[in-house]
Order: sequence, then structure tokens, then C-alpha cells
Amino acid sequence: MKKGVYINSISLSDAYGRWTSALDSVGILKPLPDEEIMVEESLGRVTAEPVTACKSSPFFHSSAMDGYAVCFPDTFGASEGEPVTLKTGSQAVYVNTGDPMPDSFNAVVMIEDINIVYRDGAEHIEIIAPSTPYDNVRLIGEDIIAGELILPENYRIRALDIGAILAGGYTKIKVRKRPEVVVIPTGSEMIDPGEPLSQGKIIESNSRLLLNMVMETGGTGYKTEITHDDPIALKKAVKNALPVADIVLIIAGSSAGTKDFTAQTVGELGEIVFHGVNIKPGRPVLLGIIDNTPVFGMPGYPVSTYVTYNLFVKPLITAMLGFKSTKVEKIKARLSRPLSSSLGQEEFVRVKVGRVGDNYIATPMTRGAGILMSLVRGDGLLRIPSMSEGTGAGREAEIELIRSIDEIDNTIVCIGSHDNTLDILFNSLKKRYPEYSLSSAHVGSMGGLMAVKKGEAHIAGTHLLDEETGIYNIPFIERFFPQGNAVLVNLVYRDQGLIVKKGNPMGIRGFEDIARDDIVFINRQEGSGTRLLTDKCLRERGIEGKGIDGYDIIEFTHMGIASAVATGRADAGPGILSAAAALDLDFIPIAKERYDIIMKKETMALSMIKSFLDVIRNDNEFKESVRKLGGYDISDMGKVIFGL
Amino acid sequence: MKKGVYINSISLSDAYGRWTSALDSVGILKPLPDEEIMVEESLGRVTAEPVTACKSSPFFHSSAMDGYAVCFPDTFGASEGEPVTLKTGSQAVYVNTGDPMPDSFNAVVMIEDINIVYRDGAEHIEIIAPSTPYDNVRLIGEDIIAGELILPENYRIRALDIGAILAGGYTKIKVRKRPEVVVIPTGSEMIDPGEPLSQGKIIESNSRLLLNMVMETGGTGYKTEITHDDPIALKKAVKNALPVADIVLIIAGSSAGTKDFTAQTVGELGEIVFHGVNIKPGRPVLLGIIDNTPVFGMPGYPVSTYVTYNLFVKPLITAMLGFKSTKVEKIKARLSRPLSSSLGQEEFVRVKVGRVGDNYIATPMTRGAGILMSLVRGDGLLRIPSMSEGTGAGREAEIELIRSIDEIDNTIVCIGSHDNTLDILFNSLKKRYPEYSLSSAHVGSMGGLMAVKKGEAHIAGTHLLDEETGIYNIPFIERFFPQGNAVLVNLVYRDQGLIVKKGNPMGIRGFEDIARDDIVFINRQEGSGTRLLTDKCLRERGIEGKGIDGYDIIEFTHMGIASAVATGRADAGPGILSAAAALDLDFIPIAKERYDIIMKKETMALSMIKSFLDVIRNDNEFKESVRKLGGYDISDMGKVIFGL
Repeated sequence: MKKGVYINSISLSDAYGRWTSALDSVGILKPLPDEEIMVEESLGRVTAEPVTACKSSPFFHSSAMDGYAVCFPDTFGASEGEPVTLKTGSQAVYVNTGDPMPDSFNAVVMIEDINIVYRDGAEHIEIIAPSTPYDNVRLIGEDIIAGELILPENYRIRALDIGAILAGGYTKIKVRKRPEVVVIPTGSEMIDPGEPLSQGKIIESNSRLLLNMVMETGGTGYKTEITHDDPIALKKAVKNALPVADIVLIIAGSSAGTKDFTAQTVGELGEIVFHGVNIKPGRPVLLGIIDNTPVFGMPGYPVSTYVTYNLFVKPLITAMLGFKSTKVEKIKARLSRPLSSSLGQEEFVRVKVGRVGDNYIATPMTRGAGILMSLVRGDGLLRIPSMSEGTGAGREAEIELIRSIDEIDNTIVCIGSHDNTLDILFNSLKKRYPEYSLSSAHVGSMGGLMAVKKGEAHIAGTHLLDEETGIYNIPFIERFFPQGNAVLVNLVYRDQGLIVKKGNPMGIRGFEDIARDDIVFINRQEGSGTRLLTDKCLRERGIEGKGIDGYDIIEFTHMGIASAVATGRADAGPGILSAAAALDLDFIPIAKERYDIIMKKETMALSMIKSFLDVIRNDNEFKESVRKLGGYDISDMGKVIFGL
Repeated sequence: MKKGVYINSISLSDAYGRWTSALDSVGILKPLPDEEIMVEESLGRVTAEPVTACKSSPFFHSSAMDGYAVCFPDTFGASEGEPVTLKTGSQAVYVNTGDPMPDSFNAVVMIEDINIVYRDGAEHIEIIAPSTPYDNVRLIGEDIIAGELILPENYRIRALDIGAILAGGYTKIKVRKRPEVVVIPTGSEMIDPGEPLSQGKIIESNSRLLLNMVMETGGTGYKTEITHDDPIALKKAVKNALPVADIVLIIAGSSAGTKDFTAQTVGELGEIVFHGVNIKPGRPVLLGIIDNTPVFGMPGYPVSTYVTYNLFVKPLITAMLGFKSTKVEKIKARLSRPLSSSLGQEEFVRVKVGRVGDNYIATPMTRGAGILMSLVRGDGLLRIPSMSEGTGAGREAEIELIRSIDEIDNTIVCIGSHDNTLDILFNSLKKRYPEYSLSSAHVGSMGGLMAVKKGEAHIAGTHLLDEETGIYNIPFIERFFPQGNAVLVNLVYRDQGLIVKKGNPMGIRGFEDIARDDIVFINRQEGSGTRLLTDKCLRERGIEGKGIDGYDIIEFTHMGIASAVATGRADAGPGILSAAAALDLDFIPIAKERYDIIMKKETMALSMIKSFLDVIRNDNEFKESVRKLGGYDISDMGKVIFGL
């Protein structure tokens, strides 16, 4: 049953080399033929030939002002003391802005600069300053002269340019044809969005992700029906696509499983250029050429799809549009924690990037290729070269950005304990202050305290119980911020307890039952406030961790614990009521705790933090949403607890 | 016939104040109602409510790898020396990536890490390392947990996000309705693109410019037929637009001419909020409210249209989409020449921006409101506040960018003498090297030399004849670059002469006829090579400038001279053959001159300059285009004349 892993597994630079020579050899790595379209519909398209004006604009001498056309020599000697008087109709003719200059007139006096007087019963104008030739006259071709270059070839058309092309006398324009990309999703387990979801079924979203990325790049195309795991059906789908497609993308099936037929199909219909590249994620990517058409096997995990699209498909689309490269915005950022990577494999790690003070801080995110949300929430990609085993904390690294620097600059970085209100808070902040975002990473209360201290986060959520005093957070602040430069602002009081299955089928009463042989527990990571509370509760009951099944299995968020219980991985885990309520689980309350936001005093001066405080203090819609989650007391929300 | 100028003429900040309070008072300055659309078609739209996952993704525990599902306790103690052997089918089950985990199995061993062996005739797998719980298993909700926030409200949807929304179980999504903008072009002199152009007619391109700008901002809409200068027709057009429009834009007719009916119409149908703002360009802009719908009177000059759209319409569209502001990219740049401006009027001056060495240099462009090409070719706008009379040369100023910094960084700044081959060169450069642009400003040969010397330009075109030696350019380089840090590269030899009307109706033989009483001359500006040649020719013939009609009337380019002759403003002017040929004029050759490119030696190291040199040296298509212009000798094109 074991199959050969990948046909080969070459380096990224080798893959690029083969990509270039294979595509070049069949004449694909160049602009597609032109098409002629209406100028009015050319926004965002790329010129296929230089656009030179066929008409001059303006097309005639015209008045640039509302006023009187005159012959400039008639105005010589005019002054306030001795105005020159010209008879209207013969010596001076009224013109509106844009009117053609009457024949033999060659200057315009602005209406603001004349007086109307009557001499011998006839209307005259008085002028108090001499005109120079073509004063206030728009000359023929002042804007565009016939024959002048309006736009060069290989130029992406903006709204502005459309005005100029039309003024230059065109109604149609030759632009690059948009590369037509046909996307073939495969997999018997795949269902279209909206179809009923059941065990073993996966919503097929990658073809839509790819098509929209193609559109963002400037291409167009369509997706076919889902092809089931059947080499004959796949071959048919590819054959149908070839006559219309400039590029074919087959999603998934290029891996080494028993249902992976992409390589076989491409190999039978054409030639495989490469199959397998030493990158992570995206290793099973495949490039083949069938009938001079490039066919890509795109890995099925969404992050792999994204990475391989950007590496191999996007540059081909831009080449077909006439561009050579697309530039990715990059910044230098300091890593907040070390990253290891395997030698011989080029890795793309998603990172969150925040600007705290003058530094950009990059925090590595999950590396699971299946976790699309890490891209949705991510700010950039850190590329770890194949010759490197990783990068240390505090080291500067170059980040390829997914979001703009401006968005990153306006994002509040919240690293610390997780609470379900943070999602709602992000939403309320964005609703009230669309210019700001909130990015939260969950490393536990202690990790959050350290992140704020080290300048890696603006704020942190924290609920650290000092066992000696029974006081939340303040004793820790006094210990870790001895200079007194930190502030605590309350967010909520919340119910902590045990999350158990709906109806509590195991009859769990509290922590005293956790060590029972028939109970599988799931725990939180060390350094989290919830872990501190858990260990305190166990200690009080004389229970040791090693006697608990699952004590060493950890999750990093309340929702992670709730999910583990909901899906049967565990019978109970510590967490907050709102997480249990979200997944319709039962909850055994243990303690009410204070969940505060900590930040440095100087941070409060930032306008995005002021907006943040405005939301938690004054946004009643936000407060109402928190109340609805259940298990929260919001009576002190926004109150300064300590430090001011 | 004189009409009241503007109803009022308020400051920009007053206008903003009235804009805000008027729009707010009728409840317009907020998001429009939602609409529900297909997720697959939501690229670029703005979320109207938070998107929280309705399904978890994945929806079941699944294998993250191709391999064998096992029960992790069965693998305890496995090592290379003592592998654990499991029977396939019962103890180990083959799974492909993405397959649901078989019931009661809870880890996957990768296919690369096992051996297949046979014991007692049955297939088994050998495992050489123990598994941990959920090794290589994708857990339910690993990507998205049901209830989790995928996107907040007020968020612009990217391709990436579409994948996540679909994976979260949605097929439809509520987004902000796109503001519907109805554009009403007015003016009896206007014709639609493609209609025959004649004296007095203007191609109506502004409505298309505006509609495409609306689309770039995120709105939608349509244009009506052109309304002639008729208050009844305009009133009808506005009334027709009101029931469907979120915003109405009336183009032109808001000035003070006799055919300007916009203010009257808006005033009769509703209320005028302001009419006339002290900005340049864009002064006659008008805002009114009719039936709670904002109606703008947009000035008719294209640059005024552009500026007032950005000041007053764009922020309204973004507010209707749920955003508060749109940020304009800005940079600090040094002004290459002084700029004066009137007190009491906020001016927006188009500038070219180039990066030369470490400095951004901004060069003011023409200030004519009718010159759309200045926006097409411009890189940014310099805002001169109403309290300022201008800005000095060398002073740092803030520039609001029209192009991206990346584009500006990749633009060769060419300031100097004008030659028609530069347009072709720009086109050929962009065709061969799409990443680079060439921006040329025409200030004459001497101005170009100084711009290169002062670090305000990368290169300059120059054809300065040293009268004493009869040598072109080199004597000037030796004088102005005594350190020997400049290089001269030949572009062309070209025929200089007199441009005269087709058929030479005045019988002009050469400069000796220019002083004739019946001849109107047009001249080039001082400091241009062509002016030097002109003055030398006149001196040789004993003719003085003051005896020539038109000697003091100047143009800045060869095409400007040709255009003046073509349109009858002059009978003759000095210029190059290609300019005469372009406008089908006659040409009297006077001299053959060398036109070189000057640059500093260090500039040659820039990769965009290397690409530039590659084009002039090796691009046969470019050379052929130059040859076709006529009057050029390209035998030394690209050859270093001096300095290396």
C-alpha cells in the first residue's frame, strides 16, 4: 500500500529554474495576445501598445475664464487711472469658460476685472490693465497634443488615465488579455459550500480562494465541478479545460496518498516539470505542461495553496499580463520568540506583526498548513532559508507583508490571557473606529505581562491570582514593574470553573472528581491564569497532577478546552462560562475572578488606545454583547484598578 | 450680462465644517443599509456585521498525513532496536491526508516512518518510535471553531478571507451596499467620445473619470446623457436621479458664466450648503442637499474635478461604506524650485517626484486646471495652505502621493532638453523593463545640467553648442563638473531648423527671413540648446531679437513650437524635424547637432540606469521607431562620448 513519496523533491531555486526554462521553452512566459475593449471599461487593465493622442485637447483655442475676448493690442496702456474702453460685440465679446475664441481675438479679460459702462447708448467694457497675448486662453493642445504619448505599453490603467485616453480621442483601447485560469477542485470528500456537512466531508473553499487570488492578480477564470477521486474523471476535466485555459490549477491530489491522481494524470497527458519542492508548507506542489498549457497541482491545505500560488502561479499571471515581477512589501521586525526550522527546507512561517514604540515585533503563529485563519489573522510571512536551522528571539528578520504597514501601525497588539470578550472587543473597536484593529495572541497571563514589559505588546489580558494575598494581578505588577510604570484597567469579572459535557454525564461535581479513573482531563498551559487557579484548586484538595489522566495534555485557549470536551477528547477541563455556553456545554462554577488589561503608562497616550478605552467605557452595544455571553460581571469595565 | 461671482467663497476648513454638519443632520454620514450577496462574489466588499463561524473546520478529527491510524498507547516503547508491530486492518488502518480518523484511533504514524512486514501471513506495520495523543491528527475546529469571529464588521474582504468565510459554513454574507453615484454631465459644447469633434466641441471625459474614481473608492453608479445648457433639462435630470442615487454629481455649470445653471437648479430643488471654496483648482465646487440626497456641483476642468472629488466626495463614499477616513500616502520631498501662491487660497500643485540618491525631489508642474495630463504624469500633490504665500526652493515639503513610493523609487528622473525620442524611450523602457519608468521634465539643456549637478535628476538630455569651439556639450561639462564626475552618452544626432507651415506659404528660406514684417516668430526659452542655436544663427546674420515679432513669446518644447505653427499662432519657430513631421508641417534644416544624455558617474551603477542603457544600446525595435520619426542619425546611440 505504500507509494513512492514524491517523484522528486528539489530545492526552491531549482524549482524556479525549471519553472522558467519549461515555461519559456513553450513560449508562455510572455504577454498573451491583445484584446480591444471600451476605454470606459479599462480600469485596472494593462495597455498592450503605447497610447498616443489622436486628437489634440483642447481641439481649438478657447477661453479659460468667464470674461471678454479682446485683441490684446487694443488693451495697451490700460491702467486704473486711464482705463481702456472697448465696445462689446465688436471690440470685446463675452465668452464663458470653454467657449471657442472668436476669430481674430487673442486674449480674455476676466469678468471680475472689468466694469460695464455705456457710451453713446452702447455697452462698453472698461479695462484697467493691459493683456498679454493669449492671456486666459487655453491653446489648442494645451493638455494633449495629437501624437503625444498618453500612456506607454505595459501600464496598468487608473481612473485618471481613462479621462486622458478619452480626451485624446479614443473610445477603444488595446489591452492585454486577462489570463484565463481554470480551477479543478478534486476529492471525493469535498462538498460545495451550502451542501450538508457531515462526518468526513470538507467544504471546498480552496477553488474560490484561488479564483479570487487570480482576480486580485489581474487574471480571470472559472472553477469546474468537484472531481471525485477518479483518474478518468480528472483526465476528462483537464482535457475539457485545456482548449480555453491559459493556466490550469488542479487542487489537491498531488500528494502521495492512495487517492492522489494528479501526477499520474498530468504525466499521461503531458510532461511533468517538477513534482515536490522542499518548501513548507506546499511541498507536494506540481508543475506540468500539457499541449503548451501550464498545469499546476496545488496542494490541498489552504495555507499551502496560498504559498504555492504566490510562489509559482502569480508570477506566471503577471508575466502573461506583461509584467516581470510583482513586488511584495517587506519590513524588518524583531522576533518575539525563537523559531527553529529543518535544514534543507525553505519554510514560510506566518507571523503577527505589531508596532510597539519604534519597533516592529513579529510573533510566529501556528505552522499547521491547514489553518487558514492563521493567514486571515496573520500580518506577514517570515521566510526561513533552507540552509538555516532557525532564527533566535530578538533577532531582526525580514517579513513579507500580507497586510499594509499602515494597517499594522494602527493595530493594537494584545498578547496575554485569552478571554472570549476580546473577539467582541475587536469587532466593536472596528465598528466604532474603523481605522483601528486589535490583534490578540494567547500565551497566558504571565506571558502577557512579560510581553508588555519587553515592549512586544501594547496591552495584555491578565488574571493572575496571588495565592498568599488572594489578590488578582496587582502583586504581580508590583513585582515585574517595580518602576511603577504600568497601569491596570478592569475589563470584566468572570466565572471560572470546569467545562463538562452537556448534561454532565460523568456526574462531575468539581476538581475533587478530576482524578477519578474514568475521567479524562484536559489542561491549560503553564503561565496561564487558569492553570494557576487549577493548580491551586488541586493543591487545596490534596490532588497531584500525575494522578490525573490528561493533566499533561494542554490547550492554549478557553475555546480549545471547550472544543476538546465537545468533541470527546476529554471529559472536563478548566475554563470560563462563556466558552462552555458557546459550544452548548455544561459548566461547574469554581471561582469568580478579575480579568484586567495591563499596559505601560506611556501606552495610554496612543490615540488607538484612547479609542480602545472609549469602547470599553462607553460603548453600550459592546457591553450588552458581553453580558449576553454569560458569566460576566461588567460593573467595573474600563475602571483604572491600579497605577494612576 | 455680468453675474454674481460665487454665492460665497469660504475657506476649506469652513467648507469641511458645513459638509460634516449638513450631511450629518440628514443622517447621510454613516453606513448605508446592508445587502446580502454570495460569499464568492464578495471580494473587495465591506462586512456589515461580524462574521462568526457557524461550522467548525475541520468538522471532524482527521488525519493530517498519509499514513496509518493507530491507538497511541499501542505504540509505547517502540524504538529502532525494538520496533512495535501492529496488524493492519485492526490495530492500524491506512488513512490519506484529510480522511476522518477511524473510531477509537487517536494518532497517525506517517507512511515514511513505517515498514510493512508480514507475520503469520497477515500484513503488519513496524513502528520505530512511540506516538503521542493526536500525533498527526487534525482536531475538530483546529482551523475555525464554531462561534469564533472570522471577520469583524467594517472590514474589507480579501481573497484569503473568502476561503475562511466559506470554510466557516457560509454561502452568503451581509455587506455594505455600494453607494450608488449618478453622474450628470452638462454643457451644450460637450460630445460623447467617438462623436465627430469640431470647433467648439469638447469630448466629455469627466463623467467617465468620476465614475471610475467612484469605483476605485468602492462605490458604483452610472452616468446620464449629457444635459445641454438648459435649466429645465438639468432639473429633470436631477429629479430622475434622486430616487436611485445615494449621491448625485453634476459636472460643470457651477461657475459664474451665463450658462451655469447648477446652483440655480440645486437651490430651487433643495438647499445649498456651500458654493465656492477658496481652493485652487476647484473653486466653484458646490454642495447641496435635495430630499436628503447630497448633490455636488463638480467643476468642469478635469484637475478641479479630481481635486474636489478627493476632498469632498471620496470621504462621503467611504463614510457610506462604514469607514471614517481614507489615508493618502505622503512623503517629504525637497522642492527643486520655488513656488508662490496667493494668500487666502489653499492651492494643490501637481508635482513630479523623483528619488535621486537619498532624497526625494519634487518638481512643480503646470498649474492649469485644464491639464489632465499633468495628473496622469504627476506623482503627487503639494498642498500650499491658505496662509502661505508659497515655498522656497530646497525647502522640504509634504507631498500627497498619486503614485506609490515603489513606482517613484523605480522612476528615472530626466530633467533637461526635450526631444521627441524621449516619449518612445519611455515606452520601450516600460516594455522591456516593466518595473521601471522614465519621467521627463523639459527645462532646457542648461537647466538639465544644473539639475544633474544638484542631484535633482538622474539624467538630462543636452545639446549645448559651445560657440568658440563648435563642440557640443563637452566644454559645458568640463566647466560645470570640474571634478570629472560626469559622463556623456550619445542618444542621437538630429536635424535642427525652422518649423514652418505646410507648403511654406510665407516662403521662408531661413533665419534671414525671420525679421520680416509679415512673419510672426515663436521662440524657445532661454537656457535651452535650441535657443542658443537660434541666437547664434541670428547673430551670424546680424539680426537683433527686438526686431523680430514674437521673439519674446516662448514655448518649452519642440512640440509646443510645432503646435504654435500648426494652429496659426506663429509662422515659424526653431525646432527639430520630428516635431514638424508629427504635425505634418514643413521644415527648413539649419544644423545637425549632437543630443547627449548626461549623468553622474555614480548614477551608472543604478540598475534602472543599466536597463535604460540596455534599451538605447540593444533594443532594435526602439532604434527603428526613432529612425521612423525622421531627422535622426542613431549611429552613435548609447556610445560614451566623454567621461569614462
